[in-house]
Amino acid sequence: MVFLLHIFKHTKQAQREIGMASSSSSLTASKVVPSRSAFPIHGSFSPSSSLSVSSFGLKPATSIAATSASRRHAPIPIRASAAVETLGKTTDNELIEKSVNTIRFLSIDAVEKANSGHPGLPMGCAPMGHVLYDEVMRYNPKNPYWFNRDRFVLSAGHGCMLQYALLHLAGYDAVKEEDLRNFRQWGSKTPGHPENFETPGVEVTTGPLGQGVANAVGLALAEKHLAARYNKPDSKIIDHYTYCILGDGCQMEGIANEACSLAGHWGLGKLIAFYDDNHISIDGNTEIAFTESVEARFEALGWHVIWVKNGNNSYDEIRVAIEEAKSVKDKPTLIKVTTTIGFGSPNKANSYSVHGSALGAKEVEATRKNLGWPHEPFHVPEDVKKHWSRHVADGAALEAEWNAKFAEYEKKYPEEAAELNAIITGQLPAGWEKALPTYTPESPADATRNLSQQNLNALANVLPGLLGGSADLASSNMTLLKMSGDFQKNIPEERNVRFGVREHSMGAICNGIALHSPGLIPYCATFFVFTDYMRAAMRISALSEARVIYVMTHDSIGLGEDGPTHQPIEHLASFRAMPNILMLRPADGNETAGAYRVAVLNKKRPSVLALSRQKLPQLPGTSIEGVEKGGYTISDNSTGNKPDVILIGTGSELEIAAKAGDELRKEGKAVRVVSFVSWELFDDQSDKYKESVLPAAVKARVSIEAGTTFGWDKIIGSEGKAIGIDRFGASAPAPKIYKEFGLTVEAVVAAAKQLC
Amino acid sequence: MVFLLHIFKHTKQAQREIGMASSSSSLTASKVVPSRSAFPIHGSFSPSSSLSVSSFGLKPATSIAATSASRRHAPIPIRASAAVETLGKTTDNELIEKSVNTIRFLSIDAVEKANSGHPGLPMGCAPMGHVLYDEVMRYNPKNPYWFNRDRFVLSAGHGCMLQYALLHLAGYDAVKEEDLRNFRQWGSKTPGHPENFETPGVEVTTGPLGQGVANAVGLALAEKHLAARYNKPDSKIIDHYTYCILGDGCQMEGIANEACSLAGHWGLGKLIAFYDDNHISIDGNTEIAFTESVEARFEALGWHVIWVKNGNNSYDEIRVAIEEAKSVKDKPTLIKVTTTIGFGSPNKANSYSVHGSALGAKEVEATRKNLGWPHEPFHVPEDVKKHWSRHVADGAALEAEWNAKFAEYEKKYPEEAAELNAIITGQLPAGWEKALPTYTPESPADATRNLSQQNLNALANVLPGLLGGSADLASSNMTLLKMSGDFQKNIPEERNVRFGVREHSMGAICNGIALHSPGLIPYCATFFVFTDYMRAAMRISALSEARVIYVMTHDSIGLGEDGPTHQPIEHLASFRAMPNILMLRPADGNETAGAYRVAVLNKKRPSVLALSRQKLPQLPGTSIEGVEKGGYTISDNSTGNKPDVILIGTGSELEIAAKAGDELRKEGKAVRVVSFVSWELFDDQSDKYKESVLPAAVKARVSIEAGTTFGWDKIIGSEGKAIGIDRFGASAPAPKIYKEFGLTVEAVVAAAKQLC
Repeated sequence: MVFLLHIFKHTKQAQREIGMASSSSSLTASKVVPSRSAFPIHGSFSPSSSLSVSSFGLKPATSIAATSASRRHAPIPIRASAAVETLGKTTDNELIEKSVNTIRFLSIDAVEKANSGHPGLPMGCAPMGHVLYDEVMRYNPKNPYWFNRDRFVLSAGHGCMLQYALLHLAGYDAVKEEDLRNFRQWGSKTPGHPENFETPGVEVTTGPLGQGVANAVGLALAEKHLAARYNKPDSKIIDHYTYCILGDGCQMEGIANEACSLAGHWGLGKLIAFYDDNHISIDGNTEIAFTESVEARFEALGWHVIWVKNGNNSYDEIRVAIEEAKSVKDKPTLIKVTTTIGFGSPNKANSYSVHGSALGAKEVEATRKNLGWPHEPFHVPEDVKKHWSRHVADGAALEAEWNAKFAEYEKKYPEEAAELNAIITGQLPAGWEKALPTYTPESPADATRNLSQQNLNALANVLPGLLGGSADLASSNMTLLKMSGDFQKNIPEERNVRFGVREHSMGAICNGIALHSPGLIPYCATFFVFTDYMRAAMRISALSEARVIYVMTHDSIGLGEDGPTHQPIEHLASFRAMPNILMLRPADGNETAGAYRVAVLNKKRPSVLALSRQKLPQLPGTSIEGVEKGGYTISDNSTGNKPDVILIGTGSELEIAAKAGDELRKEGKAVRVVSFVSWELFDDQSDKYKESVLPAAVKARVSIEAGTTFGWDKIIGSEGKAIGIDRFGASAPAPKIYKEFGLTVEAVVAAAKQLC
Repeated sequence: MVFLLHIFKHTKQAQREIGMASSSSSLTASKVVPSRSAFPIHGSFSPSSSLSVSSFGLKPATSIAATSASRRHAPIPIRASAAVETLGKTTDNELIEKSVNTIRFLSIDAVEKANSGHPGLPMGCAPMGHVLYDEVMRYNPKNPYWFNRDRFVLSAGHGCMLQYALLHLAGYDAVKEEDLRNFRQWGSKTPGHPENFETPGVEVTTGPLGQGVANAVGLALAEKHLAARYNKPDSKIIDHYTYCILGDGCQMEGIANEACSLAGHWGLGKLIAFYDDNHISIDGNTEIAFTESVEARFEALGWHVIWVKNGNNSYDEIRVAIEEAKSVKDKPTLIKVTTTIGFGSPNKANSYSVHGSALGAKEVEATRKNLGWPHEPFHVPEDVKKHWSRHVADGAALEAEWNAKFAEYEKKYPEEAAELNAIITGQLPAGWEKALPTYTPESPADATRNLSQQNLNALANVLPGLLGGSADLASSNMTLLKMSGDFQKNIPEERNVRFGVREHSMGAICNGIALHSPGLIPYCATFFVFTDYMRAAMRISALSEARVIYVMTHDSIGLGEDGPTHQPIEHLASFRAMPNILMLRPADGNETAGAYRVAVLNKKRPSVLALSRQKLPQLPGTSIEGVEKGGYTISDNSTGNKPDVILIGTGSELEIAAKAGDELRKEGKAVRVVSFVSWELFDDQSDKYKESVLPAAVKARVSIEAGTTFGWDKIIGSEGKAIGIDRFGASAPAPKIYKEFGLTVEAVVAAAKQLC
């Protein structure tokens, strides 16, 4: 028992000194040994087949070569108990090797046919992929959305052929042979990176590195939260794992460290991440830029760490590692799996050239010979097909069993079941909108960030799936739910999530939560300017149709003294330019309520709410219904749709437009004041409606917004005048900056007079 | 020797097993002891005054209370040898305490007067700030730009009053008493966060968390690189340290982990970072979201780690730690300094309420009593003033000494001195532009990413300050300098920087490099879509006037199969909307050369070059001079500035516009084709020039660009037609996507015919 010797070399004193909780290390030791005796071992177990151990930064005593050699002499137990709990079938080792090579060659062939793609990862990760999808994971291929399925995220999304091959073998309808043949082609279900909105069976959209593992943290958070809220002592209705494969590239990205720090803090014991440790990235050997100790870093982050030294063909090592990972219930587990990128390619394996290009006909041929694969491209051998075919029936059985369990749960706990059902289906509870607060012009002036908090708290009572928090600005963003405590390791049923100062992972974690269940509605918050830290995750919200509500306060120079580093200028424009995301900038209470109504109802679009730090009056004419149109008239003294001038404002500047309107009317002008709270929603309206708000004949238009004028020409036309800020902000009290920057009633009045 | 016991408890075997280089631990042990004997100790040294040790995750045996108590009984050596090397004066302990309290109260008073700001950090960090600026750092207050100064970065930028107070005491002209009184007011030199462009003495612009420490990595990289290139065995002409203070917030940000992983990899031994470990962030105790072991993480990243357990008033601990840090030459050092946020405030210390708000008159009064500070606001006691006054003379002497050294260097090494001088002054070598390659329509078609590499390689020969690299995409971004090797720990004189997959820190590190010396020109690269990962750093480039060249390839759907996660859509617009950054999208070789010319000449603006993956023809009519105008005519068959239609394109779509122009001319139309390579540069032109390119009378305008149409109304007017992409991209071969998305010659021709 080599690994026990390693562990017990540390005295308890030494363990304490290296910052290792002695409880978890003794868990490692005690859990692994008994679990082995539970294996249905089909032969003698070779002690040199290198059991995985928590590494503590150790270098392996057993070399990969030795392990590999021992495999040839000693039959290896082919089914870990982890598999037994899932699908309970037994098969022989040769067949597994054949199945793994099927995965490798489906990937090679698809990339070759597309002449584009990334064969290296699938060739190296096929063994862990096989063990996961064939032995460990619980899923129903004919219903990829079965609620209690295990989730899988390929954070190293470029290796998507691995996942497509696995989905194909497992019997998912989205990935038939023709789909593999259409890899990376127009309209296919097998795009260049995994996309949940294209391929049922893919949970989240990955490719931009580091985000996938953060999505996985979100998925695991969702499971832990829902299980704590809805499981009963007699019914564990929510119970699944989240698996993830990430590579060296993901490990280098800051977002991965953020997310993994949170996963450790939250003790997400059912998150199991495989680190594909192949030492190769696009620029070559990782030695040139990545020499940290990943294992030591993850232990510092509070993870359990296991090292599988031979990920290329020692299935047992992988199985035992998963078993150990499952036994550690209070920490997420990182399984570092040392693999060879492009395994099997005699001339390109272990080099960057196999990362992101087709092997080429000659090397494909050489690889076929090397791995003994005589088949035509895209061939799945009959015995492999047959072996995998059981997943359709087994998956259906798993779901049926769960459905029966849920029916029983529903009988015993009708209220909880109704709530949970809303989360599972995404159906909004009847009358939920009535909870939205309403305001009159007499209601007290308030910052929209405060009004936002009133909405969040009102909605939390009627939307069981609403949960979220801030990146360490809860008291500034005003995001705390008063009816709830903090989601923490030991109180995961609570709904206030404390993300720490980790904006990027916050966004990606929320994508994971949103895509876990149609009825989960995550919100997250920071200062609007810091969307720059999380923009990559927000773009994935938009692309992957994740309904995340971004609560972005301090939305302009109106925040005052913090100065230009904290004052957004170009941010409204930069989100208006992004596809499939709603940029909303409410002006007061009714518009804030309207923004939340829109955000909840748009199930396939994330929303960004830009909210003020400063107090704003409740304006006459604003409404929830108006917000839903994106742009609408809040006051008008013209007739026949022919105002002398149209004044357009958003958010905190709508007040200025309204006051300027009053001034101009005093001087006899016919003035329309328009709130332009969401450009995207206005774009969605009929031409007739648009004409009723912005008649083409009226060229005299003045806009005012405390942000860049970039983009406003579309609204005000070539003859209009946009008042805004085309420079960085400044550090001073807000009213002073408004005045110095010319964002005043007087400026609007003057501009209007020039035009009419 | 408590710390020795701790260290020797580990056997060498155990040390190896916890992944600790035994060489560095013995260094720790051996270096600290002798260095102590070098102190000019003014009394007996108390063994309980808790010498700092590399912590290995240890909790301190010595409590803060005990340390504090021991201080009262045992006189403390008030001058470490680190100080001797700098300013060589001695003073007494009471005076230091007084000086530290001066820093605290200047901060308290300024925040109180502004009724806005962050007193907590300055109150807690005043001791380390004092030691740094009064004893350790080498600078010349009357010339904040003296080249060989030590650099200091306040990564926790909200605590800027700490730095303003220190600059004030040290005699910097930018921060006089009136400036402190104008803290956070319009036009002051003391804005709400440190801004290098407002306050000479501030090196970089911080506030957005995590970026400052990445800037510090860039500053330290620049020093290491220049020292390796220009120092001679007989003349260490470049020799300074980079110091940084970062807080819990910075530590949580992913960018900090990225940057610190690189700093460890590069072995930046002259980077010394102080981690203000005060356990408080805005949301309260860091326990709610941040429970990882920071020390263990930094050791995993290859840093030397020291823990100062009493940062509130044990100056010796701080001094010894700095001494130890300097003795470790092959690793950067993290000094974790445990402090109390808001130290001295009897009711608010150690709570989030002191983080970001004025204390309030009552609590200020209580704090004055508690710390025995009877003075008026903004008072600097005479003896404190006198003590600090030496820095003006000493700083002048340091610079004079260095100038003499440089004069000698210049004599001995005239060529190196000329190069170095260009880097120090920012003066461009005469005739440098002649190195830019030129192209004719007969030159072979090529991707602008390849043309970019030709430019980079040409410029590297004539611009000694040009250096940079890619975030693990060097072979895709085409950024390698062929005349150079890789910048690495042991070959830091090389100019190809390997950033790994760490876009955000790459940007911030480049900001540090750019702001180190006026003649350093860092470039960095990734796919254009991944600017989303580094946008926060790019915004700081723009705000802080850092000339970074962002080489962004794969700039549209033209990248093809990788699909929508990799295809930028809104990115051109989102940078056009950002102040003070040049967004350039060259169409061919001449325009790429023009873009580089512009990028180098704009010393106070970063540039973003959007470059194609796909081959593009060399177009007739393009020119370097044209690029400098931002928008210009490349072909025209009209007369009298009255074309029937104007076709406008950028980058890879200029070819489509040109071809459409040819088609339309065949049909007898008078067509002008305009390249709109940089909107910002066009905006800078005279009205007359603008009218010569886009005459107001010509309303028939068609634009084509493989990106969002958002913003184009400004160029094409209300009657024009913008052809672009207002959805996410797709995974397929590029020509197929262009066709499906309607980005074709036919579409341009059809649109033009509708308009003229």
